[in-house]
Amino acid sequence: MTTYAAPIRDMQFVLHDLLEISKQDLSGYNELEPEFTEAILDAAGKLASEVLAPLNRVGDHEGCTLENGVVRTPTGFRAAFDQMREGGWTALDCDPDYGGQGMPYVIGLAAGELFSASNMAFTMYQGLTHGAYSAIHAHGSDEQKATYLPKMVSCEWTGTMNLTEPHAGTDLGMLRTKAEPQDDGSYLISGQKIFISAGDHDMSENVIHLVLAKAPGGGESTKGISLFIVPKFLVNEDGSLGARNAVSVGNLEEKMGIHGNSTCVMNYDGAKGWLLGDLHKGMRAMFTMMNEARLGVGLQGYAVAEAAYQNAVTYARERLQGRAVTGDANPAGPADPLIVHPDIRRNLMDQKSFLEGARALAFWGAYLIDRARLAEDKTADDLISLLTPVIKGFLTDKGFDSAVQAQQVFGGHGYIEEQGMSQFVRDSRIAMIYEGANGVQALDLVGRKLAAEGGKPIMAFFEMIKAEIKAHEGDAALKADFLEPLKSASKDLQAAGMYFMQQGMKDPNAALSGSYDFMHLFGHVALGLMWTRMAAAAKKALAEGRGDRQFYETKLATGRYYMARQLPATAMHLARIQSGADPVMALDADRF
Amino acid sequence: MTTYAAPIRDMQFVLHDLLEISKQDLSGYNELEPEFTEAILDAAGKLASEVLAPLNRVGDHEGCTLENGVVRTPTGFRAAFDQMREGGWTALDCDPDYGGQGMPYVIGLAAGELFSASNMAFTMYQGLTHGAYSAIHAHGSDEQKATYLPKMVSCEWTGTMNLTEPHAGTDLGMLRTKAEPQDDGSYLISGQKIFISAGDHDMSENVIHLVLAKAPGGGESTKGISLFIVPKFLVNEDGSLGARNAVSVGNLEEKMGIHGNSTCVMNYDGAKGWLLGDLHKGMRAMFTMMNEARLGVGLQGYAVAEAAYQNAVTYARERLQGRAVTGDANPAGPADPLIVHPDIRRNLMDQKSFLEGARALAFWGAYLIDRARLAEDKTADDLISLLTPVIKGFLTDKGFDSAVQAQQVFGGHGYIEEQGMSQFVRDSRIAMIYEGANGVQALDLVGRKLAAEGGKPIMAFFEMIKAEIKAHEGDAALKADFLEPLKSASKDLQAAGMYFMQQGMKDPNAALSGSYDFMHLFGHVALGLMWTRMAAAAKKALAEGRGDRQFYETKLATGRYYMARQLPATAMHLARIQSGADPVMALDADRF
Repeated sequence: MTTYAAPIRDMQFVLHDLLEISKQDLSGYNELEPEFTEAILDAAGKLASEVLAPLNRVGDHEGCTLENGVVRTPTGFRAAFDQMREGGWTALDCDPDYGGQGMPYVIGLAAGELFSASNMAFTMYQGLTHGAYSAIHAHGSDEQKATYLPKMVSCEWTGTMNLTEPHAGTDLGMLRTKAEPQDDGSYLISGQKIFISAGDHDMSENVIHLVLAKAPGGGESTKGISLFIVPKFLVNEDGSLGARNAVSVGNLEEKMGIHGNSTCVMNYDGAKGWLLGDLHKGMRAMFTMMNEARLGVGLQGYAVAEAAYQNAVTYARERLQGRAVTGDANPAGPADPLIVHPDIRRNLMDQKSFLEGARALAFWGAYLIDRARLAEDKTADDLISLLTPVIKGFLTDKGFDSAVQAQQVFGGHGYIEEQGMSQFVRDSRIAMIYEGANGVQALDLVGRKLAAEGGKPIMAFFEMIKAEIKAHEGDAALKADFLEPLKSASKDLQAAGMYFMQQGMKDPNAALSGSYDFMHLFGHVALGLMWTRMAAAAKKALAEGRGDRQFYETKLATGRYYMARQLPATAMHLARIQSGADPVMALDADRF
Repeated sequence: MTTYAAPIRDMQFVLHDLLEISKQDLSGYNELEPEFTEAILDAAGKLASEVLAPLNRVGDHEGCTLENGVVRTPTGFRAAFDQMREGGWTALDCDPDYGGQGMPYVIGLAAGELFSASNMAFTMYQGLTHGAYSAIHAHGSDEQKATYLPKMVSCEWTGTMNLTEPHAGTDLGMLRTKAEPQDDGSYLISGQKIFISAGDHDMSENVIHLVLAKAPGGGESTKGISLFIVPKFLVNEDGSLGARNAVSVGNLEEKMGIHGNSTCVMNYDGAKGWLLGDLHKGMRAMFTMMNEARLGVGLQGYAVAEAAYQNAVTYARERLQGRAVTGDANPAGPADPLIVHPDIRRNLMDQKSFLEGARALAFWGAYLIDRARLAEDKTADDLISLLTPVIKGFLTDKGFDSAVQAQQVFGGHGYIEEQGMSQFVRDSRIAMIYEGANGVQALDLVGRKLAAEGGKPIMAFFEMIKAEIKAHEGDAALKADFLEPLKSASKDLQAAGMYFMQQGMKDPNAALSGSYDFMHLFGHVALGLMWTRMAAAAKKALAEGRGDRQFYETKLATGRYYMARQLPATAMHLARIQSGADPVMALDADRF
């Protein structure tokens, strides 16, 4: 029932007006001219709209099924996955040495938005594979890379990440899965893993599991954990598939959403595995892909909300209900369209101004990852490390809220499954949880990232804001609508950071009690910065008489909405933070 | 998987410490001594915890089914409904002339919280019946009352409300269902109604539909609509059931939640109906029950969230994950319970401080309804009319958010349907939509209720706050923690009202663009007032050395949390309101 159109115009604006990617001095970036990226996004958008979006409801409705140990994906998923493979969409930003197209990550991310928005559950099969590819690419031996990467780049084989166990989620130090070294250098892996997305399915020949497990001598903490490659089918020397490994699907979880993705309980019963990276350094290997993986989840948060928003706009334009308070807008009809009503607009503008800001932040994040990798830019690396928990936590929380708002536009019809709006809400809910629940993101931000490198990255972020304000302070309209709200929001963020520094010394709970609010405060400031930059870029384009005037004026109006109506949240978060630990920690555990 | 315990201690606090009901000079109130209400709540709580709660997941999982035009409810619903009937729980606050127990509404509402919290979908069958009972009781002829009410009080017959049609939701003026007058004084009703909760099922002998329809001569607007009684089975003169009426179930909707309730498309094909109340005055008849119905939905919002909260607390106490930053709390175990972590407490305190404030507001609302009815108190009637959209809109929005937070405590486990946390989120979502979507509540508040009676009710509300502050200003601790935050929040609300008065004259969109924020701003101030009163009541009890000291101290600490951490939202809502209509209305409809 829902439809999806690729927001290519807006993506092009972010890539070229905001980030000016083809002008950046980064390997591969100079090829990214507007015509080139548009062609890519057009083709990806066509696949998303015409193939993946129509399967979204099918996937939700049918779900995956487990029969005799074999997982079947919903009708149409297999054929669509073939189309994705054949179109080369799985290989976009992969290493050409292993069959990839070698494009920058920012392009992979942009295409990923289109796929995730149109069908999140489906796109996860490829997304997980890309994560596993990255881990093997970064930490694998030459032999491992040669064995696994070409097939994973093409998604002939897909990948998974196996972290969680029934009793060990965030606290991986408690995991019990064991790895016993064998004489031939391999390990026998035994244990149970849960919540394994894309854990098994019928769309690829093989599934390459990356499994965290404890090998002897590593001790009890997370520091002693190692990472292993455990293929579903063992791979022969010649690359052909050999025996079935001792790994099986214990159960398929019945979930709130993303029904089209197979979330498995995986049982490892002495399965053959090979160490990936260094022994007892598995967590470090995991963390090197963390920024990318978490950015990818932040992207899911706003991507699904974008799809929900598009359908809400269509409904608000078409559904006739009530009359505009300022006079009939549709006098010939029985009523005016919903979109005439101020509160419907308030709802839609909340969504639109968030979504476009979120896209800018996610694409900027991808650019920073490219810069860190391609130019070995330490400043960019530090900055994206700081921003990662914000992107993951803030964009998924707000993305979910945004999808709920989109559903609300439909009134009672939004609650009926057939309409598809409920699915957006149910699907986007998981993004707040997996890849580190958002409370853990907040803890990472305040407990680790703020103080990292002696606080240099956060100082650099504040300097960036100052510079932005300074660069445009001669522009009176920009000053009133953008620079002053940004300055005020940024002051709130600084005050919060200061509070943590002063109070956190005395009582770590004082900082941690405010961590979640700090993540949201930071998110608003980051989006405020994005909107200020986008406003400046739009004004520049207007001044130069480039392109579609209406597009740039709409961009400015949307930005003004964000600054006027969303940014005031920073003061609230600051007030909550500054109330300290006492209200939060006051009760004994048995008084809740 | 989830459990539910009746929060009787807290209810008793609200009834007796806060509202002091047995001391109120209202008919029937002086019997409501603490021992008496406790006995009632204990018995209702037992039914809720032991019978209804275990059926909650069953109802969600099985849902209702439609076979050959007959709706079947989930396993166990019928027997539970019998228990509810036999226990007299459907008759609690009904008129003794028709078999009711004649208790005040506040007691009916308190019991209703227990039932809705434990099984919202199930309780709706009785709730809808109560609504239809109230309409017939208020507007029916003596003959109609004698025919229908005794059976509806006992829920041998259940009731429904038929408003919405496929093309007409909020805008009831567009409805097409026709009523043709017959010679015998009855009407033939023809048309289609959708989203009819409890529209048909197998738990009662008859279903009494109240149907809005257009009879000749009423014109096209909502003013010409009439309300009809349309029974599923016609009732013979002797009260026995006669022929099947021409009303049938067209479809059973597949919904996001409340699967245990049968949401029907109802087809009326010349069904026999009888006018209820005056011809062409159907909307007025509907509106007389509106305060009660909307208060009931506001109650659902926080009641389901209360159940979710209880399960989140249990999980947070039992789940071992990570270590407290201030030193191991459970050194003998492999990890500390989640509840040691500040961010988990922040999450739980957000829920707890909202829920207890919400309960106070809802119970106060029920008391005001009693006062309006039993003492014909116009001031109370005006005040509850003003508060009704706030109670409905704010408590359901925040109740949903609260359920989402409870789900978050479970991490990945919260996303698995078997755990039951997803159901709380999915069920509570509907409360934001039905009985007037929350945007419509905001419109009602700002567009109608604020200016009602020349603004007297809102002025009276502000006076109430002033008086509360004045009454306790000698108490330094109360002043700092409660009175000052309340004063500040109340100022924000006044400033918002002032803004609407000044700007709304020039541009109605300026007021309507801020209506939703005003509803939330008002909600926070109302809960701030409740918390201030509860804090004063708790201090009084402590000073008098009454009861459980720990309970009252916990109450004070929870109130301090609300004032410090939730009330700062008022400034954000004010800022959003004061940014006016421009950001909201800036875009042409085709630029979204």
